[in-house]
Amino acid sequence: MDRSPIEFFFDFASPYAYLAACRVDAVAADLGRVVRWRPILLGAVFKVTAGQPNLMKPLQGDYLRHDVPRCARHWGITVAHPLPMPFASLAASRGFYWLEGQGGDGHLPAAFARAIFNAHWAEGRDMALPENVLDVAAGLGIDRDAMEQGMAETAIKERLRAETDAAIARGVFGAPFFLVDGEPFWGADRLDQMAEWLRAGGW
Amino acid sequence: MDRSPIEFFFDFASPYAYLAACRVDAVAADLGRVVRWRPILLGAVFKVTAGQPNLMKPLQGDYLRHDVPRCARHWGITVAHPLPMPFASLAASRGFYWLEGQGGDGHLPAAFARAIFNAHWAEGRDMALPENVLDVAAGLGIDRDAMEQGMAETAIKERLRAETDAAIARGVFGAPFFLVDGEPFWGADRLDQMAEWLRAGGW
Repeated sequence: MDRSPIEFFFDFASPYAYLAACRVDAVAADLGRVVRWRPILLGAVFKVTAGQPNLMKPLQGDYLRHDVPRCARHWGITVAHPLPMPFASLAASRGFYWLEGQGGDGHLPAAFARAIFNAHWAEGRDMALPENVLDVAAGLGIDRDAMEQGMAETAIKERLRAETDAAIARGVFGAPFFLVDGEPFWGADRLDQMAEWLRAGGW
Repeated sequence: MDRSPIEFFFDFASPYAYLAACRVDAVAADLGRVVRWRPILLGAVFKVTAGQPNLMKPLQGDYLRHDVPRCARHWGITVAHPLPMPFASLAASRGFYWLEGQGGDGHLPAAFARAIFNAHWAEGRDMALPENVLDVAAGLGIDRDAMEQGMAETAIKERLRAETDAAIARGVFGAPFFLVDGEPFWGADRLDQMAEWLRAGGW
């Protein structure tokens, strides 16, 4: 496969990123592309853009609470009720980059990301808590103690910050956000448009 | 036709509202619905929600400049280059409500709204200028002097404010925004989802 990957930027704390995470693999497979999972911290993005989480915005927060379950029903995706938010995704994001640093082809970090999304948003288990993140990791056969130590390393904390800064430098201002062949697509509801764009060879 | 209309809330100044305006009639006709055109002032909405135009947001403004022409190409919609924005839509919005107040079944105000959108976003004529708004009206056979007087009436200014306040009270926080059968859909990229939702009888 020599087509460039679909870079998938997300914050585990975004319910729309969760919706996208449930669909991105199938969309990419149809396109003959791989997905490069990139957790970032939207909090850091919002410091640069003076943004704030949609959840916290008057009126828009109510719409989100209605729209996320509605989109989930549409796509056949399970979501916990009530939606378990907001949540701080620091531990899960650091766990991801520690895992990625252990080598391999990216399959295990991607599986970990999917499992974190599922545990939090479908099962309602609070992934803000490091012990719950480690439980999910252990369920995938990952060394629990090693990840716990890794999550506390300065190099891992800096890695997450650097990944977030690099995403911002490339124009990422929200999540989910996709970059493929230099083309940006923002929003869970743009996955299909991205697929059409790629199939058409651009327009 | 006893199905309730699709209420279409927009600010003439929103390029995404323009994209939606080009498609909403065909989508509604397919569904056997009529469109109720409701211009509002996003500036007043943003005072309540502490929001700001996407155009003004760091990174997101650049994305918008790229995404709007890309969506337009996808949907076969003409847009001026560069995009003529920002613009103040006060005159056009007041003209709309004056026209609506003249009676009739709403066809002429809708035609006026479509013509304003087209003149500004496709032809690049500056619809912030009252004289240009009046030119568009005159092109539709509307009495230019009567509209000019009407736009200056206190009752019309208050009508626009009241329509905007009523929209906010019903949860409208951005544009384009659709309300149909009590269901809210936000964004030009949700028109097709709204159509599917209505066809399915909800989900």
